[in-house]
Amino acid sequence: MSETVAEVGEFRLIERFTRHFGTTPAVVLGPGDDAAVVAAPDGRVVACTDMLVEGRHFRRDWCSAADVGHKAAAANLADIAAMGARPTALLVAVAAPQDTPAEWLEGLASGLAAEAAATSSAVVGGDTTRGDQLTVTVTALGDLEGREPVTRAGARPGDTLALAGRTGWAAAGLNILSRGFRSPGALVGAYRRPQPPYAAGRDAALMGVNAMIDVSDGLLADLGHIAAASGVSIDVDAPSLPIPETMRNAAEALGSDARRWVLTGGEDHALAATFAADAILPEGWRSIGTVAEGTGVTVNGRRWTGPTGWDHFAEST
Amino acid sequence: MSETVAEVGEFRLIERFTRHFGTTPAVVLGPGDDAAVVAAPDGRVVACTDMLVEGRHFRRDWCSAADVGHKAAAANLADIAAMGARPTALLVAVAAPQDTPAEWLEGLASGLAAEAAATSSAVVGGDTTRGDQLTVTVTALGDLEGREPVTRAGARPGDTLALAGRTGWAAAGLNILSRGFRSPGALVGAYRRPQPPYAAGRDAALMGVNAMIDVSDGLLADLGHIAAASGVSIDVDAPSLPIPETMRNAAEALGSDARRWVLTGGEDHALAATFAADAILPEGWRSIGTVAEGTGVTVNGRRWTGPTGWDHFAEST
Repeated sequence: MSETVAEVGEFRLIERFTRHFGTTPAVVLGPGDDAAVVAAPDGRVVACTDMLVEGRHFRRDWCSAADVGHKAAAANLADIAAMGARPTALLVAVAAPQDTPAEWLEGLASGLAAEAAATSSAVVGGDTTRGDQLTVTVTALGDLEGREPVTRAGARPGDTLALAGRTGWAAAGLNILSRGFRSPGALVGAYRRPQPPYAAGRDAALMGVNAMIDVSDGLLADLGHIAAASGVSIDVDAPSLPIPETMRNAAEALGSDARRWVLTGGEDHALAATFAADAILPEGWRSIGTVAEGTGVTVNGRRWTGPTGWDHFAEST
Repeated sequence: MSETVAEVGEFRLIERFTRHFGTTPAVVLGPGDDAAVVAAPDGRVVACTDMLVEGRHFRRDWCSAADVGHKAAAANLADIAAMGARPTALLVAVAAPQDTPAEWLEGLASGLAAEAAATSSAVVGGDTTRGDQLTVTVTALGDLEGREPVTRAGARPGDTLALAGRTGWAAAGLNILSRGFRSPGALVGAYRRPQPPYAAGRDAALMGVNAMIDVSDGLLADLGHIAAASGVSIDVDAPSLPIPETMRNAAEALGSDARRWVLTGGEDHALAATFAADAILPEGWRSIGTVAEGTGVTVNGRRWTGPTGWDHFAEST
């Protein structure tokens, strides 16, 4: 049997946890002191935080500890990318029940470190404590490299709506797992370890994108945030979001609606953005709709009648 | 009856939560987007994170929601001060059960905002989600104003050990509350809302302090971190830590040991530091011992035989 966190004790646990964290030139002072110090060459720092709770955002029988680390890091790193910034560092706070295997926390640390490394950033600090429910809070920092932050508020009538990355995959994977299946691996894997198009965020910022958001709650819900913040209406051209055969087959087998996964499924951490109509979309981006005067989000010119996304205090659907 | 977070729903809850947060000139972009943007004029940013769990770090019948906000903010702001930095911003993530009164989360937000304002910083972003146990993770950012970070590793034999702020007060308050009493108010209040000597951290850095730490786990435990990181021994001169009469009376009434509170009680967020022997201590700092060659921490030249502090995965004491 693996030792539990209670058996290992806080200080040895922190040692075992932090030895997984790498470093980068941006890390001025890493874990082990009261606080970390990270380079912020732009003179401003981008910062966001996101909390994952066991049973709500992950299940230990569906995801490995490393998967949870990847997922928690990705959710935050994608938020940094959605501002047009380059991630520089992560901090992590974990509450764990006393009987949690220390190995599980090590797996979490390795997943966090690996996902950070995929963006050339590193985990620089954190906190561990006892709690009844496994809870992981990640904070990400990023650098704007001299550019203005890309907000949700810059979309203009006439803009092209574009998407980088994929939607619906994580929702499909979650649906498959919740019915007791473990395959197809491509969909289940997408739920376990999202693959946000980090570089696409920075590329969009370099090309003068008008508005951008991380698709974490579902495409329609998150486009709703851009529409509200920008005072515009957004129409999604559904045929421009083709449904992959694997997903279509899975939806048929489960009696689910693949179109709904693609339009309302969260957690893939695609990036949605609006560009001026005459802009050339950067690599990895494709046009999926248009921005006009008005309010709200439509699909093929019509209101979407199903649920649009995710309310973190509502009952699970 | 107050509405619960489930009744209010995530998006309205976030609105009610964030309207308590003020702003400062350092806030380039506040709450409401994928991430916040905060000034980092030094070109580096100091960052730390700390998690408070209900039942472990606070109880709703012992502390108001605003108290918990003050406490969570103070724990992080003191870590920034201990690096010799000036706090600039906080981020907060909260997991709350569905039946949590929305009012409680508003109280938490107001406490966080007020404590941030006491350091001229502001809350710039966050996350809310459902969880079985109320859990609050705060991340703090800070600016070094061109100075080098003050770590735990710079203490040298011959240094003067100094303290800013107080120790034992929060431990006394916690002891009083856990025996079912609510007074004396000065001690209970110290537990509910610690008063870290924020400015003393920056002042020490300006005066060329050698090593510094936030006393969050207990004076002896935290001095142990300085001793280990610096490769020195530290002796505390117990008489230089006088026990206030209120504390002595409370200890007698409860059959507790006030000396133990002062030496091992955490959560007051005093700052402990070592200065060169010939340094003039900045205002608010007083000498409480000496640094020598060797290892470990002693009190009046002898090993302390009781518990030294706090292990977050151990049973409560």
